[in-house]
This record gives sequence, structure tokens and C-alpha cells, in this order.
Amino acid sequence: MYTIGVDLGGTNIAVGLCDENLNIVEKASVPTNAEREGELIVKDMALLAKKLIEKNGLTLDDIEYAGIATPGSANVETGIVEYANNLHFLNFPIADLFKKYLPVKKVLIANDANAAALAEALVGAAKGTKSSVMITLGTGVGGGVILGGKIFAGGLNCAGTELGHTVIVAGGRQCSCGRRGCWEAYSSATGLTNATKDKMVELEKKGIPSLLFDETEKEGKTSARTAFNAMRGGDKYGKMLVDEYIAYLAEGITNMINIFQPEVLSIGGGVCNEKEYLTKPLIEIVERDQYTRTNPNKTKIVIAKLGNDAGIIGAAGLGK
Amino acid sequence: MYTIGVDLGGTNIAVGLCDENLNIVEKASVPTNAEREGELIVKDMALLAKKLIEKNGLTLDDIEYAGIATPGSANVETGIVEYANNLHFLNFPIADLFKKYLPVKKVLIANDANAAALAEALVGAAKGTKSSVMITLGTGVGGGVILGGKIFAGGLNCAGTELGHTVIVAGGRQCSCGRRGCWEAYSSATGLTNATKDKMVELEKKGIPSLLFDETEKEGKTSARTAFNAMRGGDKYGKMLVDEYIAYLAEGITNMINIFQPEVLSIGGGVCNEKEYLTKPLIEIVERDQYTRTNPNKTKIVIAKLGNDAGIIGAAGLGK
Repeated sequence: MYTIGVDLGGTNIAVGLCDENLNIVEKASVPTNAEREGELIVKDMALLAKKLIEKNGLTLDDIEYAGIATPGSANVETGIVEYANNLHFLNFPIADLFKKYLPVKKVLIANDANAAALAEALVGAAKGTKSSVMITLGTGVGGGVILGGKIFAGGLNCAGTELGHTVIVAGGRQCSCGRRGCWEAYSSATGLTNATKDKMVELEKKGIPSLLFDETEKEGKTSARTAFNAMRGGDKYGKMLVDEYIAYLAEGITNMINIFQPEVLSIGGGVCNEKEYLTKPLIEIVERDQYTRTNPNKTKIVIAKLGNDAGIIGAAGLGK
Repeated sequence: MYTIGVDLGGTNIAVGLCDENLNIVEKASVPTNAEREGELIVKDMALLAKKLIEKNGLTLDDIEYAGIATPGSANVETGIVEYANNLHFLNFPIADLFKKYLPVKKVLIANDANAAALAEALVGAAKGTKSSVMITLGTGVGGGVILGGKIFAGGLNCAGTELGHTVIVAGGRQCSCGRRGCWEAYSSATGLTNATKDKMVELEKKGIPSLLFDETEKEGKTSARTAFNAMRGGDKYGKMLVDEYIAYLAEGITNMINIFQPEVLSIGGGVCNEKEYLTKPLIEIVERDQYTRTNPNKTKIVIAKLGNDAGIIGAAGLGK
């Protein structure tokens, strides 16, 4: 038997046909065109899945179920996306609509960060564990928690995804959610980019040179890489920014470890390309600060393994 | 059938004989004498339970199980207290020892804050819900989470109790756990007492009068009540302290709601005697700030109902 995994993003719809071991047999993608009506998006998801099934000489009988990883608050019990800001979904019956265009036996849904966490737990960085947390450092700080091998959905079926919306600096930076000082405002790639831009404005005013400017010119823009690259070039402002970024990241990660005590906490998202420049100092702080630091059963912090395929694999693994 | 609930505290051991509906038939207590050897403490727990059983004309056959609510990291699967700072327990087999002195059919254990949360979920402020969080504002900020009617124990079986050790003010007040800026350092009764003392030192230096001094004199000490009483007397520094206290409390509670999305969040501990002076402004902030504020399924914030009996009832309810 095979499963279909759909990773619905703000930019692209990615669909994968997966075998029983969650290997991607074939994948394809089409633009989301997020501004259009939701049903048209779901129709494209279903048609792309159909194409992959037929192309591989299979029929709907060979498909155990389809899984959808979607942004926003996905109610895993009802198959309804209660709210997704980027896609204008409000109480949107995504599972039923998918079934309308492709009558598979079953359609399962989950928040995309949750699906990615499940993928890492099933076949990625947290494989073999019963409990894990995955944190994705991207535009925001996404979160997914796996407990007892299952997605932790909290009380009202949509929790476990908004870990980034926990305040770590009361009264601090403005967050998109309306609060001030959320972890996301400090530890997302966007947070680091903004902090870098702010520092550059300050340095420019004072006429202080820094590799931050050279790196920005080299890349054509200021990004989350700018500070790391400047630091590696010996720039002290780059180092300050990276140190500060990692200190805040450690606060949030330590909070999550104190709350969930997972066997493994994996970190995904573009910032992870910095590898040990990120993880080495991070792990030092978290090991020092976590509440159960004297306990031999400490949480292991690792880099996520599945990259961009985590959404497809997690969606395809929702029934595993 | 009856159950035994033991609430092991740093000062007293409280034991209750409970009926099937978790009504306390009779309760009694003896001093803990926390400094002595752990086994002697457990022996006293068992002897007191035995006395209650016999006094009520029952035998061990009438007891379904005994439950123990203990401070520290209680491993619910092994019956071992992995670590309890106040009682010098380290990998302490509390369940087996209890059985040695009172051979009941089964001994269940849980962290005391978790047990209190379970009690509120079974027969208290969160009765009838499947998901709830209880926060206890005392010497520390204790936490207990109930999901699907069961105690949430996280990944490594001891989680769900250290919610107070999540940083809400990075680099802020020193916390007993070694970190700076933990929620506990701001929102425990101790946190408010310390903030009040600091403010009084400041006012005294400047020679500024305040009802904080009168209230302290009246009570014979500065406590978590001092600022609330001064505020009610019209004192502006009392009001400042209370406003600040509630703002930080709201940060932590909003964080927990964003993470767990419980149906009910109940607040226990001495500070709750301030009733609506605490809850009204608190609820206003949390309703404004929580991530799912637009969702009709919002978390209801209430005062816990069971007071000091929560530990006994929760322990007695561990098998329910």
C-alpha cells in the first residue's frame, strides 16, 4: 500500500507518493496561488495527487489514505482548518473537499509544523523515540510535539503549533500575533534579519564599518545568514548579533524542554545550515539551564534531517 | 470501594480516606519532619493510612489503591521519586516502600501539583472537561496539565510540573532554578512579596510614605497580601505592584494557553484569596493576548475550588 502526502505551503503545493516505509516514490509541485478561493487550491492538490498515482501505474485502491499538512489551526478530529491567516481559511473543510476531488479511503490533516515533527519522529532526526519536539526557525518559529508517538494537539485540538508565541521578553519586540516579546520575534530567521538590519542602521549612523555591510552587498540583501557570515569573517558586530540570537533561542528551547521533557528536540529551518556555529553554543546554554540538568535522561538537541520533504513525509505518515 | 490519598508536603503528611466519588470520609495529618530518612516518612504515611482504615471499620480489602502526591519529579510509571529537593529524595522508591508498610493492592504516585490539577479536573473547578491546566501560586509557581482526562507527563515521565520554570523576562530576576527571569520569580506569592519588599526599601530611602508600611505593620510581616491590601486602601504603590504582578502573571498564563489550549485554566494558591481583584484584570489581559482570541473555543480562567484538600483528593483519584 501507498500513501499520499500533501504539503500545502503559501507559495507551492507539494505532493508526494510514498511507499510503506515513507520513502518518497515520486513528488511534484504546483503554485498555490494563495489569493484564490480555497476550493480551487484543494482541487489542484487532488489533481496533482491523481496524476502521481496514475503515472506510477497505481489506482485509488493502492492508496491507504491521503494526508494533508496545512498552515494554521488544523483540527485533526474534524478535518477542518479552523483558521489559517496566510490562506484565508476560516473553518475550511479541507479533508472533505479533497475527498470530493479524489475519493481516497481516508483523508487526514495536521498543521504543517506538526506534520514535519511527526516526519522527524518517524524517519528523521528523532527516529526511534517516543517523545520529541521539533522547532522550525523560518519566517516564524514553528513547533511540533510528538508524545507517545502521536502528535500532541493539546486541549482544543489545535495546540502544539504556537510554541513560538510564548513571551520570553515581557514588553519586548513587537510580534505579529499582537503581543510583545514572543520567542518568534527573536528566534525566527526574520527576527535575526530584523535585528541585523537594526544594528546596521545604528552602525551606519555612527559611521562604524562592519562586515555586515559587505555581506549584505555580496548577497544582495540582509538575511539571517548575514550576521553568521560576518562573524566567521571576524566581525565583532556579527558575533554580537549571533550571540544574542543564540541566547534568546536557548531561552525558548529551554522553556520547551522544561515543559515537555522530550527525548529529542530537533531544530529545522534555514538557520540550521549554520550547523555547529548554531548548535554548539546553543547546546552549552541549554544543558546549563534546563531544570533537569542533573538528570541523566536529558533531552538531546539535534538538527532536523528531512529538510523540505518533512511536510510531505509527515503528511504521508499521519496514519502511521 | 475506597481509596487512600496521601498528600506529602514539606511540613505535614496529610492522609485522607475517600469514597468512590472522591469525597473525603476522614482525614488526618502528622508532621513530615522532612530532615529525617525518607523511609521513616513513608512509614508514617502508611501507619496513618492504616489508622484511618481501621478507625472506619474497613480492611485492606476495601481499599482499591493508595495514591501519593509528592513534591518533585515523580515517575508515574515506576513509582519512583526521581528527585525532590525539599525532601532529599533521589531515585526514591516511594511506592514500593509504602507497600512494604501497608500492603494495599496498588500504589500510584504523582507530583503534588499534578495531583491537585487532577483533583480540580475530577471534582473541582475543571469538572466535566477533558483538558485543563492548574497553576498554583505559592512559594513557587506549580503546574499541572490534564489532557484527555489524564495527567500530562511529557516525554520523560516527569514533565508538566515545571511550568513555572519558563523564562518570561530574559535576563530578569534570579530564580531558584539557576536561570534568570523565570515566571516563578515573578508570579509566585514569594515573587510578589519580594517585589513589595524591594519597593518598600526604595520608598523608605526616599522618605515616601505608603500604606505598604501600615499593612506590613498590621500583619507583622510583608506578604503577598500587603500590596493588594494597600491598593484597596487607595495606595498608588500598592496598585503599581499589583498591576505589575498581574501583568507578569498574564504573560505566563497566556503562554500556557497558547501551548496547551485547555478548556479551563484554574488558579490555586493563597494569592487566589484576592478573588476578582486578581482575576478581573488578569482575564482582561489574557483574553486580549491569547493567540486564539478570535476562536469561540477560548480557555476559561477560573479560581480553583478544592483548596488544601486538592492534594489528598488528587492522590485518591490517581486511578480514576
